[in-house]
Amino acid sequence: MSWADVGDTVCPIARSLAVVGDRWTVLILRELFLGARRFEEFQVQTGMSSHLLATRLKRLQEDGIVARRQYSQRPVRYEYRLTDKGLDFYPLLLSLKNWGEKWSGLKKNNPPALVIVHKKCGHETGLRLNCPSCGEILDPRDAAVTLGKKFSSERQARRGADGR
Amino acid sequence: MSWADVGDTVCPIARSLAVVGDRWTVLILRELFLGARRFEEFQVQTGMSSHLLATRLKRLQEDGIVARRQYSQRPVRYEYRLTDKGLDFYPLLLSLKNWGEKWSGLKKNNPPALVIVHKKCGHETGLRLNCPSCGEILDPRDAAVTLGKKFSSERQARRGADGR
Repeated sequence: MSWADVGDTVCPIARSLAVVGDRWTVLILRELFLGARRFEEFQVQTGMSSHLLATRLKRLQEDGIVARRQYSQRPVRYEYRLTDKGLDFYPLLLSLKNWGEKWSGLKKNNPPALVIVHKKCGHETGLRLNCPSCGEILDPRDAAVTLGKKFSSERQARRGADGR
Repeated sequence: MSWADVGDTVCPIARSLAVVGDRWTVLILRELFLGARRFEEFQVQTGMSSHLLATRLKRLQEDGIVARRQYSQRPVRYEYRLTDKGLDFYPLLLSLKNWGEKWSGLKKNNPPALVIVHKKCGHETGLRLNCPSCGEILDPRDAAVTLGKKFSSERQARRGADGR
């Protein structure tokens, strides 16, 4: 399956990956969430080539995740901001942050690279996976997944096509 | 910056991306979370070539995210399972699921492709971003990020190196 065919699946995970399943794109999102607005800042902090960055930014604009605004006429300069659609990637970034802090070999004694405070309550915040129904910590081992009819047929068809 | 240099950053997001910033890898994780255990099933459901799948699976094993176990001697067959380190990617998958359901053009009236029930309470579950301190819905606009000293210097050095 090529990523251009992703419209053929009803799986929301695969469809998200078609948009954001590229590490460079996620690094640009990190910069935007950190408050960066300008091409040069994205480039310096991600280490991307101009060409790669321009391509990814354009794609993010086309996908409605980033909005571009001209802030200077001479010279012509643009700034970039996350749209609501882009801001909704926040949990994705927090998931990566949590996993990286726990598992990527960062020393436990080191102070965290990123501390997030909830301005409304003034305390440290972030992602913690609780069941929205009962409030308990949600362990994936306690989760039962049911597939919708369409996704189920899609998966069955793939098995059939493969002769299994 | 190449992804091999990722040890040079203290950013937990970039470090996670070095492990999982590849859409194929995340699709394999999806299959594992859906309960798939075997190479053939991963291959059929992701549409990856044997070579690409073998490479990614090997990397996941080396990174301690997936454990391989032989379940048949003749023929020699292996099954794959998520380790605790792998199970900790659950919020990442749920983030992608949420975003895809809301923004990837899936029709609103269609029943969801994936329904997750919390076995402990019997109700539908998933990721909802609440502040762990006050319990309110956490909007990224209400989050203030502070950078740790090391990450801050790292970012400053990149600016300096670039002559800005």
